[in-house]
Amino acid sequence: MQSFRVELGPASHDVHVGSALLDELGALALGAGLKPAKSIIVTDSNVTQFYGKQVTGSLERAGFSVQLLTIPAGEQSKSAEVIAAIYDMMTNLGIDRSGTVFALGGGVVGDLAGFAAATYLRGIAVVQIPTTVTAQVDSSLGGKTGINHRLAKNLIGAFHQPRLIVADIDTLSTLPDREFREGLAEVIKYGAIMDAPMIVSLEHGLEAILARNQGALEEMVARSLKHKAAVVSADEREGGLRKILNFGHTIGHAIEASAGYGEYLHGEAVAIGMVAAARLSSLHSGLSADESSRLFRLIERAGLPVEMPSEWRDESFMRALRLDKKRSDGGVEFVLLDRLGHALTRKLDVDSIVALLN
Amino acid sequence: MQSFRVELGPASHDVHVGSALLDELGALALGAGLKPAKSIIVTDSNVTQFYGKQVTGSLERAGFSVQLLTIPAGEQSKSAEVIAAIYDMMTNLGIDRSGTVFALGGGVVGDLAGFAAATYLRGIAVVQIPTTVTAQVDSSLGGKTGINHRLAKNLIGAFHQPRLIVADIDTLSTLPDREFREGLAEVIKYGAIMDAPMIVSLEHGLEAILARNQGALEEMVARSLKHKAAVVSADEREGGLRKILNFGHTIGHAIEASAGYGEYLHGEAVAIGMVAAARLSSLHSGLSADESSRLFRLIERAGLPVEMPSEWRDESFMRALRLDKKRSDGGVEFVLLDRLGHALTRKLDVDSIVALLN
Repeated sequence: MQSFRVELGPASHDVHVGSALLDELGALALGAGLKPAKSIIVTDSNVTQFYGKQVTGSLERAGFSVQLLTIPAGEQSKSAEVIAAIYDMMTNLGIDRSGTVFALGGGVVGDLAGFAAATYLRGIAVVQIPTTVTAQVDSSLGGKTGINHRLAKNLIGAFHQPRLIVADIDTLSTLPDREFREGLAEVIKYGAIMDAPMIVSLEHGLEAILARNQGALEEMVARSLKHKAAVVSADEREGGLRKILNFGHTIGHAIEASAGYGEYLHGEAVAIGMVAAARLSSLHSGLSADESSRLFRLIERAGLPVEMPSEWRDESFMRALRLDKKRSDGGVEFVLLDRLGHALTRKLDVDSIVALLN
Repeated sequence: MQSFRVELGPASHDVHVGSALLDELGALALGAGLKPAKSIIVTDSNVTQFYGKQVTGSLERAGFSVQLLTIPAGEQSKSAEVIAAIYDMMTNLGIDRSGTVFALGGGVVGDLAGFAAATYLRGIAVVQIPTTVTAQVDSSLGGKTGINHRLAKNLIGAFHQPRLIVADIDTLSTLPDREFREGLAEVIKYGAIMDAPMIVSLEHGLEAILARNQGALEEMVARSLKHKAAVVSADEREGGLRKILNFGHTIGHAIEASAGYGEYLHGEAVAIGMVAAARLSSLHSGLSADESSRLFRLIERAGLPVEMPSEWRDESFMRALRLDKKRSDGGVEFVLLDRLGHALTRKLDVDSIVALLN
């Protein structure tokens, strides 16, 4: 197990990464200062069969009174209707301010359950228990929560830091191959924006990761999360530095929105977005052709898509790009690389992005 | 004009109280560092006719591009449906992170528009422009935002501090008598919990306030808001001290919920709650009979109700009391006085409250 602390002033919290942690969850939660009060576990229809009972049992042994709420798996659950169902269940259970929301699942569950925790009684504790690569290496840390609006992903949301993150890498064993690979997009992202040696490690160690070697997974998750923690600690509310985490995401989000939520997995869209952003970086910020190619090959070897989908010329893609919430004063704040391992942001207008993609 | 600063670390902001401030709103907003970007004014069907154009004009002169959204007046608007309509309008207007929500109205507008600002793109700026006594002396300051759930008031919400508060006392001139008087409950509350000389001032100056004398109103609003600012600065998230602001509110909320939202105005329910809390204080925390009577008479002279409604023995009242969000670990955190001008909290169970009310 690797443990470290995310420094966020009064919202600082611990992170544990390792094997066989779900059985320790109750004890870890008590250790984080949470009260064994009426609480809720939010999970989805993919995860509940594998880990629902195990997590419930672990929490009950520690004295928590918990109910398990299983929502339908998929991005469609990040809706006003599902959040209303969670509020109803929390209210009916009589959960009060001493209660905790345990978010057991991938990014959808983390965002949704985190937003419920952020807005129930003006905010109660949430523990993130990520079970996908994407959630373990990235989305569980940083306090971003939210739901989708029909016009834009994550339009409705709040910053709400978890009280604890427990990433049990054993849960990655039950992930379908496609979901496993999509998470590698965020791993590669951390190398690309802030850790050139990590890119070299991935170039050499990708096979062990794809074989889901336990040591390789623990190292991958812990290294990625520590990078994210460093960025989030320096910039909790995405005022500046944190924007670099959006490398590949501006175009990625527009792909997701225009292709219809669900056609591309988030990491797949980000993979395409990173390839496009690397091309823009070669033109705008001096990324060498060699480094751009290395990034391209690594993404391709991870089994991720690298080509823009045909829909990208549609109006819905442009509209989604214009609505991207990283916009400010009309321009799109775009993350570029000047070399592998170092990112910068630059304001680009949508038309110039489109011209360069053409 | 009286101006002061609410100290809240990075969320610190200014407050301006005085006459003829709506015309200065645009300039004051720029002075607070807000960008003249695409923004929205949320107001209600009572307020829009009097001040909608004035506020729009003031903001436009300062360079803001604003749309006015008028919601139906009343507590019923603090709903999932109305918040969805606000999100839709903000999205359709293309409001981005540099935009501002201007909340022009009473407590309902402040809570609702504040919650929209708290949750749109994970939080954008809100300016509170309270137009009722209740909002000017109390609810506009402190960052509480939220909407109602069918089972409990303000169940869904967030803490989101305004970037600026502008309380123009001229707006109180158009308030119906009943709405004006209900706001005095919160004024009296500040005297009761933390400012005994203010109770004496109110005993002597109530007629000038009821006659809506401009100097009396400015002093009343500024003195109340400064008290609230002091409490909120010391305890932004209601961890301890801030709980004393709930004097009269635990029973008040249960009255509102059990009588059906809207039958009692918030301040009227709080007035009854303060009388009941004063009785509980005489039994539990040594408030003298003389001081309890003085508080009772002041509330009565302000034209506010003092008797528990007949519904209070209903199951819905008990249920609402049990669901009150100030609960923690099963007990109700109750605010009592040990003397006029000084409050304390004590955990009481619902049964003992009921026994004492009987």
